[in-house]
Amino acid sequence: MALEIEEAQELLNAQIKPITETETVLLMDSVGRVLAEDLVALRDQPPFPRSPLDGYAFHGEDSSGATKDAPVKLKVLGKIYAGDVFEGVVGLGEAVKLMTGAPIPDGANCVIRQEDTDEGEEVVALYTSIAPYQNYCYQGEDYKAGEVLIPAGTQINAGAVSVISSLGKDRVEVLRKARVGIITSGDEVLAPGMDWKPGKIFDSNRAYIGARLMECGTAPFVSVHAKDKAESVAEEIRKAVEAGCDLVITTGGVSVGEKDIMHDIGDILGAERLFWRVRIKPGSPTMAYSYHGVPVICLSGNPFGAIANYEILIRGMLYKLTGQICWKMQTEDMLIQNEYKKTGGRRFLRGQAADGKVSLCGAEKSVGVLHALAECNCLVEMPQTGQPVKVGDTVKVYYL
Amino acid sequence: MALEIEEAQELLNAQIKPITETETVLLMDSVGRVLAEDLVALRDQPPFPRSPLDGYAFHGEDSSGATKDAPVKLKVLGKIYAGDVFEGVVGLGEAVKLMTGAPIPDGANCVIRQEDTDEGEEVVALYTSIAPYQNYCYQGEDYKAGEVLIPAGTQINAGAVSVISSLGKDRVEVLRKARVGIITSGDEVLAPGMDWKPGKIFDSNRAYIGARLMECGTAPFVSVHAKDKAESVAEEIRKAVEAGCDLVITTGGVSVGEKDIMHDIGDILGAERLFWRVRIKPGSPTMAYSYHGVPVICLSGNPFGAIANYEILIRGMLYKLTGQICWKMQTEDMLIQNEYKKTGGRRFLRGQAADGKVSLCGAEKSVGVLHALAECNCLVEMPQTGQPVKVGDTVKVYYL
Repeated sequence: MALEIEEAQELLNAQIKPITETETVLLMDSVGRVLAEDLVALRDQPPFPRSPLDGYAFHGEDSSGATKDAPVKLKVLGKIYAGDVFEGVVGLGEAVKLMTGAPIPDGANCVIRQEDTDEGEEVVALYTSIAPYQNYCYQGEDYKAGEVLIPAGTQINAGAVSVISSLGKDRVEVLRKARVGIITSGDEVLAPGMDWKPGKIFDSNRAYIGARLMECGTAPFVSVHAKDKAESVAEEIRKAVEAGCDLVITTGGVSVGEKDIMHDIGDILGAERLFWRVRIKPGSPTMAYSYHGVPVICLSGNPFGAIANYEILIRGMLYKLTGQICWKMQTEDMLIQNEYKKTGGRRFLRGQAADGKVSLCGAEKSVGVLHALAECNCLVEMPQTGQPVKVGDTVKVYYL
Repeated sequence: MALEIEEAQELLNAQIKPITETETVLLMDSVGRVLAEDLVALRDQPPFPRSPLDGYAFHGEDSSGATKDAPVKLKVLGKIYAGDVFEGVVGLGEAVKLMTGAPIPDGANCVIRQEDTDEGEEVVALYTSIAPYQNYCYQGEDYKAGEVLIPAGTQINAGAVSVISSLGKDRVEVLRKARVGIITSGDEVLAPGMDWKPGKIFDSNRAYIGARLMECGTAPFVSVHAKDKAESVAEEIRKAVEAGCDLVITTGGVSVGEKDIMHDIGDILGAERLFWRVRIKPGSPTMAYSYHGVPVICLSGNPFGAIANYEILIRGMLYKLTGQICWKMQTEDMLIQNEYKKTGGRRFLRGQAADGKVSLCGAEKSVGVLHALAECNCLVEMPQTGQPVKVGDTVKVYYL
């Protein structure tokens, strides 16, 4: 009996042990990786009260009632730039000239912008009154020492990199990358770069899955083409698991023909079969094993069958492995711009979603058709109403 | 006078010469790159009529009227697997057993699935009638030799990789990567990894912009911190342009203080000033030059000012350079979940967009606050109604 998609997902996800091993990488190599430990502030940010503009720091009380016609005059004790520190204390009737980003000296409690003064060097005339703590960036207003700035498990984006850099860290502890093995089979399949021969076709499955992993920052850990014999595929699975793969994906050999060798690998390896057949079109003969605790998912060799099952069944496992949001399936209800007549089964087609609408790509052709794939950005699930789909019907879109 | 954002974008984009130089990369290194030439099919795909299932190929006319009770019997000439070629011609009354993916032999025009036969080896009994060209994948039904499969200028995704691989190509011609220089200034700024000293802060601008470039597959081509002198920054700009940068970004020194040195670099370099000040908050004192035909954009040193201006003004230039969709700004109207009281100016805040709604991150704090950045996924433009923003107002979201 074919499993429902959700049952298959549950069985597969239960096989996944989230990655806990970590490694230290240079900050600029951390983009897209997953933070392995809470990022804690080492000191207050800003580490001192800071001026947000070019002007003069003083006691706000001093400027009470100042106007252009009746300015208040203060003695200028000195001038500091960003990066400098004023080594004294500013008393009443005194000011320090300072630039954006400079520390506000002890004693002063506000900053007047230079445009509101005569810009005096020895004595400055203030043309307006400034309240205490006006134009005053508090020490620690961004964050305080000891505060958790980014929790462990966060996928590092550019914003996170800038926060980590602002802590002064040039290295960061991240989860190791997911290790995925891809093993294709089929004696008709040639690797790209080889010479074409009659009866043969070039690989697209290993290329697709490998490229999808790379889009999420993980090159395939193992990527091989196996001979069309159960023993050969089983041997490649054994090697991939020994090499440390977190999961292994195979393509081909899952149907009911003589060359559908994946039925035999469980016995050869002593692996537990989790299921065979999922109620999904295309690619329904997906099979899964657990081998030494590592999930082995055997997809159809049909290119779009392999793609649909990779996206619907395998991405969730990868997401559970590392928590990288690039693997989290994003779905949305959309109005479809095409009609589609086939009914029955839970069928996924390729689509191009834009501006809240989705159009099918190459749906009129066979499921083996790859051509339209480059312009697709989603899978579209056909509603199971038993009725043909009409233009304007609501469908569920799964972003690639 | 401050320019409108759109005027600044137009002036900047006019400086960009789209990249035309190309390089050859391995297919698996092409993910995210831009295809430099039309990808043309070298042969039909499939390259032969192909069986979509395990069964028998024969003349459909032969099976007319076949039923389980009154099967039609055909002589089996042989058996072929995917990757094999049958070297004869199938005549009337004859069949060839074949597996999914195998070429349909000459003469045959349909395939019956093995479940609808007695699976005979010498003679096969057909239990149902099959029309000519039923279960028959036509040669070239995916694409024909000479057809343009993916046009030049397409950013290569996993779907495109699988199509290129199916052509047998293991290398592909792509545009060279964008070369971006980042030059930060400010004597108060320390690089991460250095020891902290009073009055100093650690860099976040170079980290943010560098990481944003890496998110789109381009490491910074030049990334340096310059001394806080106009001559030093000018010298770094000169070196970056000589090294071949397509554009140069600086941060800091654009306001009106003594250390706002970017005003002087035009004279030092003999560069044409394009503008100073844009009607955008934060980061309005953005300045731009054209130096030897290369745009030099000088952003505020204030972290969120630099970020907002990078996203709103510079991403469009990068998109024009290579056409990579990761640089194309995606916008959406959304309902805001917070109130916001400041009015005036075109103000951008950080937000977290999800499920058609957007919440502000850290908006109550100063623009220098970085902390909330790691959890943001968009900028939010406050509507220019002159009224405070209320919960449920519609705002425009710009995805990061």
